[in-house]
Amino acid sequence: MQTALTAMLGIEHPIILAPMAGGPSTPALAAAVSTAGGLGMLGAAYLSPEALRREIAEVRRLTDRPFGVNLFVPEAPDVAPEAVARAQALLDPYRAELGLPPSPTVTRYGEAFDEQLAVVLEERVPVFSFTFGALPAGQIRALRDAGIRVVGTATTVAEGRALAEAGVDAVVAQGSEAGGHRGTFDADEAHMLRALVGTLALVPQMVDALRVPVIAAGGIMDGRGLVAALALGAGAAQMGTAFLACPECGANAAHKAAVLAATDESTVITRAFSGRPARGIANRLSEELRPHAAELPPFPALNALTRDIRQAAARQGRAEYLSLWAGQAAALATSRPAAEVVRDVLGQAERVRRGLAEM
Amino acid sequence: MQTALTAMLGIEHPIILAPMAGGPSTPALAAAVSTAGGLGMLGAAYLSPEALRREIAEVRRLTDRPFGVNLFVPEAPDVAPEAVARAQALLDPYRAELGLPPSPTVTRYGEAFDEQLAVVLEERVPVFSFTFGALPAGQIRALRDAGIRVVGTATTVAEGRALAEAGVDAVVAQGSEAGGHRGTFDADEAHMLRALVGTLALVPQMVDALRVPVIAAGGIMDGRGLVAALALGAGAAQMGTAFLACPECGANAAHKAAVLAATDESTVITRAFSGRPARGIANRLSEELRPHAAELPPFPALNALTRDIRQAAARQGRAEYLSLWAGQAAALATSRPAAEVVRDVLGQAERVRRGLAEM
Repeated sequence: MQTALTAMLGIEHPIILAPMAGGPSTPALAAAVSTAGGLGMLGAAYLSPEALRREIAEVRRLTDRPFGVNLFVPEAPDVAPEAVARAQALLDPYRAELGLPPSPTVTRYGEAFDEQLAVVLEERVPVFSFTFGALPAGQIRALRDAGIRVVGTATTVAEGRALAEAGVDAVVAQGSEAGGHRGTFDADEAHMLRALVGTLALVPQMVDALRVPVIAAGGIMDGRGLVAALALGAGAAQMGTAFLACPECGANAAHKAAVLAATDESTVITRAFSGRPARGIANRLSEELRPHAAELPPFPALNALTRDIRQAAARQGRAEYLSLWAGQAAALATSRPAAEVVRDVLGQAERVRRGLAEM
Repeated sequence: MQTALTAMLGIEHPIILAPMAGGPSTPALAAAVSTAGGLGMLGAAYLSPEALRREIAEVRRLTDRPFGVNLFVPEAPDVAPEAVARAQALLDPYRAELGLPPSPTVTRYGEAFDEQLAVVLEERVPVFSFTFGALPAGQIRALRDAGIRVVGTATTVAEGRALAEAGVDAVVAQGSEAGGHRGTFDADEAHMLRALVGTLALVPQMVDALRVPVIAAGGIMDGRGLVAALALGAGAAQMGTAFLACPECGANAAHKAAVLAATDESTVITRAFSGRPARGIANRLSEELRPHAAELPPFPALNALTRDIRQAAARQGRAEYLSLWAGQAAALATSRPAAEVVRDVLGQAERVRRGLAEM
């Protein structure tokens, strides 16, 4: 299946691997999806510039097909020392359970975006995608001038319009079903009540509002979802949870097991792990910290503060402290290799298209 | 387009009018959708048995095609007198603004379900649909024995399974995009965090879990949404907001104007009007009562308590006090007659199917 977007990106099939920063993303997974004819993607937001350069080289060693890199547009919120102290106090009991020292000193909340972006430019990656806001038009122009296709992420039509005005080549319409962080620019509580729009409602409205291609994201797991996305007017589907339990995926074993055991009612939107709303499988940490959501420091501060807990929990295989990012159709995930997932999605999409034609 | 469900229901096209009780539903709208080849539906939950009988007769006068009647499965929650007093105190300032007397005595919270259901049985309506729970298997059997097709409403796979076990002929999978009341059986706060599943994620999971046909609901407004629903495995699409601004629809003028002015960010889930979570366009009442949600009495008590306010607001054209039920794709609504809406949806669906076949 070819669309204007697959032609623009130089890919064979309208399937894009969702960026899954912080573990799940690996060069092997990105390369497998690209080799299968989709667009592989490195979720690189938490990588140092050096690590990002190494991962790009590794993808290139594994495939000669196009691929993408995703970064988070930097946020520099005011982080009140009292909010950090409060978060440490809330987190220390979990640290004790995991055998970790209390309240570690965190000197730095995230990687330097400008240095990460410089690597993307120098390496001339085929596709650059970004999340959490609109990149300035000047930076988008510099990327495009370097021959890089630029993709922004929107959860509302207004955000999509802002991205198109800034000059992106395509916009991801992230529906409320999507796993992981919400891309919502302004993620305060009041706005989040309105900015969780289901994929089936969001995509056609985005398509009508924008002149650039739209990529549907959220709840798409198989050939049915892919054809639905294309019917809604999307040029491709971005799929993350569908690849979460693949052997090439770097998600830890407890995370993969939770995805494979999920039902449609397993996930919630939580700020407990990173300070930014994200969809994951509900667990002890997401639910025990829910009443304290308003007191917690914002992203990326809280993300840095919970890192030692998440890393220890991954080592100890304790899912109750992990950010188990997953979308609302996680129950449809499989543990097959990524190339087989792509092949099965395409095969089912063919059957669905045939069925629709014969209805 | 024919599916197993359209054959079962004896309709030409896989389009079902969503029940929209409390004003929007009219015999004229139901008959118009049925005459156009879909399945018209009376949202009859708030009708007295006598009014229901009259409306069924009126539909039959206007069309000889199949149609449906929807009722709410009765809930008999404990309504604490203190919660009623608290609600009255919260509502009285709005009554004062509307020129209404304070704290009217409400002696009865809803219509008698058994009497409503008796009318459905006696009138042998072609299709009976229900919401807010699972009807007992014995009542479903009695309806089916009378030649009535029975359709339940589910917001999760577990609810869908319960309905199928109770013996329904088909299940509506109500995605989180849908306008109006959530059909969720247990609508407490903690469950609602997990039971708002997007249509695109919910439908395929429901289809995989059930052996009866699934009807997709939530966010479907045009031919793109209809084809997407069918691609996901649904046998038909249930559409409400798409018909809300039609001339045949009984929604008041302020409600129709709000729907036609909506964007993707206009709606919220609120308990403020009825005590049960429902999606509508955010307004003063939904937002000012949000902080008090936990104190408000449950459905149908609060619904009865806010009735005088909603009726006065409708008369005075004051949208800020109305329950402006609408789905997340309300921005795609038009004010054309229902027959034209059906015709346009089908025409666009044909173009979408052709486009998919040629991709």
